[in-house]
Amino acid sequence: MTSVHSTRTFHSTPTAPCRRVGSLSMPSPTCSPPPKSRICVLGAGNFGSCLADHLGDSDHDVLLWSRSEDFVKFFNEHHKNPEYLTDHEFPECITAVGPDLPSAELIRSVDVLLFAIPTEALRETLTKLRPRLDEKALPLFIFVNKGIEISTRALTLEILADTCGADIARVSTFISGPSFAKEIIRRQPTSVSVASLSQEHAERASQVFHQPWFRCYTGVDPIGIELAGALKNVYAIAAGMADGLGFENNTRATRLMRSTVLITRGLGEMTRIGTAYGASPLTFLSLAGVGDLFLTCSSPTSRNYTVGYRLGKGEQLDEIIRTLGSVAEGVTTAKGLKQIIDDLGVNARIATAVYEVLYEGKNVKEQAETLMNFPVMTELELPEKNPNGPARKLMQKLGLGEDDAGKRA
Amino acid sequence: MTSVHSTRTFHSTPTAPCRRVGSLSMPSPTCSPPPKSRICVLGAGNFGSCLADHLGDSDHDVLLWSRSEDFVKFFNEHHKNPEYLTDHEFPECITAVGPDLPSAELIRSVDVLLFAIPTEALRETLTKLRPRLDEKALPLFIFVNKGIEISTRALTLEILADTCGADIARVSTFISGPSFAKEIIRRQPTSVSVASLSQEHAERASQVFHQPWFRCYTGVDPIGIELAGALKNVYAIAAGMADGLGFENNTRATRLMRSTVLITRGLGEMTRIGTAYGASPLTFLSLAGVGDLFLTCSSPTSRNYTVGYRLGKGEQLDEIIRTLGSVAEGVTTAKGLKQIIDDLGVNARIATAVYEVLYEGKNVKEQAETLMNFPVMTELELPEKNPNGPARKLMQKLGLGEDDAGKRA
Repeated sequence: MTSVHSTRTFHSTPTAPCRRVGSLSMPSPTCSPPPKSRICVLGAGNFGSCLADHLGDSDHDVLLWSRSEDFVKFFNEHHKNPEYLTDHEFPECITAVGPDLPSAELIRSVDVLLFAIPTEALRETLTKLRPRLDEKALPLFIFVNKGIEISTRALTLEILADTCGADIARVSTFISGPSFAKEIIRRQPTSVSVASLSQEHAERASQVFHQPWFRCYTGVDPIGIELAGALKNVYAIAAGMADGLGFENNTRATRLMRSTVLITRGLGEMTRIGTAYGASPLTFLSLAGVGDLFLTCSSPTSRNYTVGYRLGKGEQLDEIIRTLGSVAEGVTTAKGLKQIIDDLGVNARIATAVYEVLYEGKNVKEQAETLMNFPVMTELELPEKNPNGPARKLMQKLGLGEDDAGKRA
Repeated sequence: MTSVHSTRTFHSTPTAPCRRVGSLSMPSPTCSPPPKSRICVLGAGNFGSCLADHLGDSDHDVLLWSRSEDFVKFFNEHHKNPEYLTDHEFPECITAVGPDLPSAELIRSVDVLLFAIPTEALRETLTKLRPRLDEKALPLFIFVNKGIEISTRALTLEILADTCGADIARVSTFISGPSFAKEIIRRQPTSVSVASLSQEHAERASQVFHQPWFRCYTGVDPIGIELAGALKNVYAIAAGMADGLGFENNTRATRLMRSTVLITRGLGEMTRIGTAYGASPLTFLSLAGVGDLFLTCSSPTSRNYTVGYRLGKGEQLDEIIRTLGSVAEGVTTAKGLKQIIDDLGVNARIATAVYEVLYEGKNVKEQAETLMNFPVMTELELPEKNPNGPARKLMQKLGLGEDDAGKRA
C-alpha cells in the first residue's frame, strides 16, 4: 500500500505566474520548473512563513493557515507577517486562511499539506484533520517540525501512524536541514535533506521545493532524520555551555577548537543513539545531521545555544527560561532523550551531562571537567544493531518488515 | 605477526621529572600517568615541535631530530625553535639531535619513533632507517604526516609496507585530528584520532600522548584516517573559493550557511571516496574526519583555505603560490585525488571542480554555479563496497585477508 498517492495528479491549471510584491531582480531557475502545485502550509510562524514565501516565490499557489484570525486578516491585507520576518513582503500568490482548521473541501483542493507546527501540537491537529482526509485523493504530507513528543517520546512518524494510520505515515515526507528563515527569503543558498520511507514521495517533495538556491537531497531514513533534528538541540546547549564556561579564554582558535571537538563528539554520540534506536548511522552525515548540528552549535543567536551559554556563565535555568520567554526545544528534548538513552543502554555522556545540569542541579563546570577527564577510549563505538529497538517497533506499527528500517541507508 | 612489539618493554628508569623552563602554573593530570617513555620525534617543524613539547611536558624523555645542524645547536642552547613557535620555551627534557639520521644505537634506545616529516620525504627517510632497525626490539612507530605521495599516490601505510615491510606497517600507528600547534603548547584542550590496524598498538600510542588536555580516541581504520587527513585539504580550498567568491555578501549568517553546506557536502564526498577506496564510512565521522575537515575549512589562516579564497577573488594560481612561498598541500593532493576518483569511478563533484580550477584553468565562478545547479539528487549515495579497491590491494600487501579492511569499522 505505498500507492496511496498514485491516483492523485498535481494541479496544473494554467494561471498567471505569481508576482512577488515589490520583488527585486532575482536570478531565475535554470533547471526545468517543477509542475505547479497548490499547497497549504499549516503554521504561520517563522519557519512556516519563510517556506510559504519560498513556495510562492517558486510559482506555487500557497495557502498559509494560521489559528489567529487577526493574522489572516493582516496578512491578506498587507502581505506581511505581523510577528515574524516583519519587514518582508510576501508574494501575492500566498493567501492566508484560518482560524478554523482547513476543511475537507480545502484539503481536497490542495496537492500538498505542509505541517510547520510544533511537535506538541501535532497529535491534536492530525486527529482533527483525519476525518477530513479523502483516502482516495490524499495530498502529499510534508513535515518540518522537529522534536520528540514529551509524554510519549514519540517521533512524528509514530504520531502520524497513531492518528492517521500506517498507510499515510509510510508515504509522509520530512524536510530537515541547516537553514535560516531570513536567508531563505533572501534567496541565499540553502540545502536540506528530504526523507520518507517512500523514495518516490521524497522525490515528489523535493520537486515541490527544489530551486537552484534551495537544494533538496533525498533519503529514506525518516527516523534518523527526525532523531538528528531533535537531538542536535541538546548538543547546541552543550556547545553553549562550553563557550559560556570558557568565555574568559575566547581567542578565535580556542573557541574554534572547542566547538570542533564538541560538534565531532556530539555527532558521534548522536550517531550512537540513532544506531541503537534503529536508524542508519550514515543519516547523521547528512545535511539534517552534521549540517544542522554544525549550524545550530555555531549560531550564538540560537535559543538552545543561548540557554547553554548562560548556564555556562552561572545563571540559573529558571531565570534563563523566564527571560527567554519560553522553553528552548533542547531543554525539553534533553528530558525525553535521557529516558531513550537509559532504555537503549547507550553511552551518551554529553547528553547525560546536559540532562544532569538541567534537571538534577549539577554544576556545569564539574560536568565539563568530568567529560574532559574520561580515560583513553575507542572512537565511534557503535552499538550492535538492536533487534528490539524502537525503530523495529515503529516499523511493525507501519506494517513494514523488521528489516525495513535497517535497509534504508 | 601482530606481536612485533610484544617483547619490547617501555623504558621506565626513574629519572628526575622533566621541568618546563619558565613554565606557568598549569593543571596537572588527574588520571594515572602513563609509563614514562623515551621518544624520538623526527622533524622539528611546527607540528613536530609542538608534539615534542607536549610529550616533554608529559614527562617523557624526548629527542627532537632535525636535519639542520644550526637548529640542533640553537635548540639545545636556548630551548627555543628559531623558526616555529619562536616565543615558546621548550621543556628541558627535550634534546635536539641531528643532522644525521638517528643511528641504530639511538633507535635501540627509544620506545617510540614519531614521524613528523612531510609525506614526500618519507620513502627516502624510511629506506635509510630500515637497516638501522633491530627487528627483535622495534620501537612503536607513530606517524602524523598527512597526504598522498605524488608519484605513486600511495598512503603512508603503503610507503611503510614498501620500505619497512608488512610486519612493521601492520603495527604502525597514525595520529590525526583537529589541532593548532599554538593551542597544544598552551595546554588548551585538543582531541585526536589514533588509528592502527593493531588495536593494541593504537592504545599504546594513545597512552603515550593522552592527558586530560590531549584526548586520544582509538580506531582501527588507518586507511580511512589517512584519506580523511589528505582529502580535507582539497575541501578547504573549496571552502576558501566559496568565501572568496561570496566576499561581497559576507553577512555572518550567509557565511555560516555557505560553510555548513560545503562542509556537509564535502564530508559526504570524502566518505564516498573513502568507501570506494575500501575504508569504513564511519571513520569520516571521527575527529580526523569531520573534526579536522570542519576546523580546516573554518580557519581563514589555513594555507589551503587561503589558496581557495584568493582564487575565488580572481587571483591566478601561480601568483598565489609565488607569494605563499610554497605549494599548499591541498593543491598537490587535488591532482593525486583526481586520478584516484577517476580510477574508482566515484562521484566527487567538489573535488573535481577544485581540480579543474587548479589544473585546467576553469573559471571559479562558473564551477561554483555548476555545482549549485545540479538537479535534485539522493543524499549520501555510497558506492558498493569495491572488492578490488585500493584498500584490498594494500591489505594483500600487508599479508592481511581481503575482508580485514572492511571489518575494521
